[in-house]
Amino acid sequence: MTNTQNRKATSTPPLGGRGALEVCLSPALLPLYKVEEYIVVIIDIFRATSSICYGIDNGAEAIIPVAQVEECIAYREKGNDYLIAAERDGSVVTGFDFGNSPFSYTAEKVAGKTVVLTTTNGTHALHLSRAAKKVVIGSFLNLTALSNWLKTQNENILLVCAGWKNNFNLEDTAFAGAVIDNLKQSGEYTLDDPAIAAYDLFQLAKSDIPAYLSKTSHGERMRKLGIEQDIAFCLNVDITTAIPVLEGERLVKLA
Amino acid sequence: MTNTQNRKATSTPPLGGRGALEVCLSPALLPLYKVEEYIVVIIDIFRATSSICYGIDNGAEAIIPVAQVEECIAYREKGNDYLIAAERDGSVVTGFDFGNSPFSYTAEKVAGKTVVLTTTNGTHALHLSRAAKKVVIGSFLNLTALSNWLKTQNENILLVCAGWKNNFNLEDTAFAGAVIDNLKQSGEYTLDDPAIAAYDLFQLAKSDIPAYLSKTSHGERMRKLGIEQDIAFCLNVDITTAIPVLEGERLVKLA
Repeated sequence: MTNTQNRKATSTPPLGGRGALEVCLSPALLPLYKVEEYIVVIIDIFRATSSICYGIDNGAEAIIPVAQVEECIAYREKGNDYLIAAERDGSVVTGFDFGNSPFSYTAEKVAGKTVVLTTTNGTHALHLSRAAKKVVIGSFLNLTALSNWLKTQNENILLVCAGWKNNFNLEDTAFAGAVIDNLKQSGEYTLDDPAIAAYDLFQLAKSDIPAYLSKTSHGERMRKLGIEQDIAFCLNVDITTAIPVLEGERLVKLA
Repeated sequence: MTNTQNRKATSTPPLGGRGALEVCLSPALLPLYKVEEYIVVIIDIFRATSSICYGIDNGAEAIIPVAQVEECIAYREKGNDYLIAAERDGSVVTGFDFGNSPFSYTAEKVAGKTVVLTTTNGTHALHLSRAAKKVVIGSFLNLTALSNWLKTQNENILLVCAGWKNNFNLEDTAFAGAVIDNLKQSGEYTLDDPAIAAYDLFQLAKSDIPAYLSKTSHGERMRKLGIEQDIAFCLNVDITTAIPVLEGERLVKLA
């Protein structure tokens, strides 16, 4: 069927039981889901959600993701309480505090600060997910902390891959598979086909995630930008425990 | 980036070399591709493209896929030279010659006839692909014949999964992976991330395709419709050699 109207979650969680655990492979597919029925996890491994997890874990008061460099500048004009981060073609935009590298999000740089981050794939997915029961941020950096928190939630879960130029990418999907791999151990969820595929792909990646992802087209683009160190860092598993959650326009640490 | 404008094929084929071999995981993602730059293969394993391959191989003069039952009826009113096929919830619509089961496309029933087939996922993908260099039909039934023909074409190839309600499904993606598995042996193609994922998923399915696909949500829906025999039939590999190709509105046998 070509019917594109929003569909209900595959199942609603039985009392004390488990609900739907689904994966949206690209922001272009989000209109197919009723996000109001899910807790949404936004995934943009290279590099937005990895940098956000690292920055919030390192004490940033908040991170505000925006789509356009101009929006960043508008915050800067509100005063110097804001750090603004923007990058084009791998270099920091002139006049900005730093770029999108996770190495810019150390405690020394961001503790107590609000960072306005220009991201594209990630911001798009966030905006489309606003109506969700909750929107949280996932990356390999907070994989176990995120998975453990999701296990305590008796809600349908939608893992949203920010993807690349609105299309599927392997690194975001593999991470969705990693979350499913953790959650499956804690009971029966109802997986949709994208979730089955993400889980299966992660089984292939699990033993050596960097090696598996080294073949992705996006990884190739990143290497061309000379940011191999960023890529390697974004694939560190469980070096943080904070779970960034969306409150209005701001991503803050989940209490 | 959220830029959704059509992008060029990952690469254009070098003289005598190989070009891009890409997979579009859902019709909703087709606007991301410049279909004019590709030979497009339409894939709707359960059951449209399987029935079409079987019908054309069994001597149907042409198969005309339409989206609505009403369009079928319009053809019937043109005269009885047309067989019309339509199904809703697994039963033949009253007044129609047959439904969408591949078992309706035997030589006895379709040889020399034109069949107007109501399909939904498949028709949608076909219409969106019209501008392609060529549009051909793939299924497990003609896997090797299709792959061998594609190897002789010095063009970029886009494998388009019809999917389910505009979203990803496992059976169409696994078949795309099977085509890639065949083509990779014949030289270096440039794969995009969806193609890498499809290929990897097929490696998991390869040894027992029915067992692997039995876990799909769509397979489950099909079982509920009581058409397990159709599903089993659609997973027969290489029982036909015909390659249906789109000419105007009609699918005919590739000369």
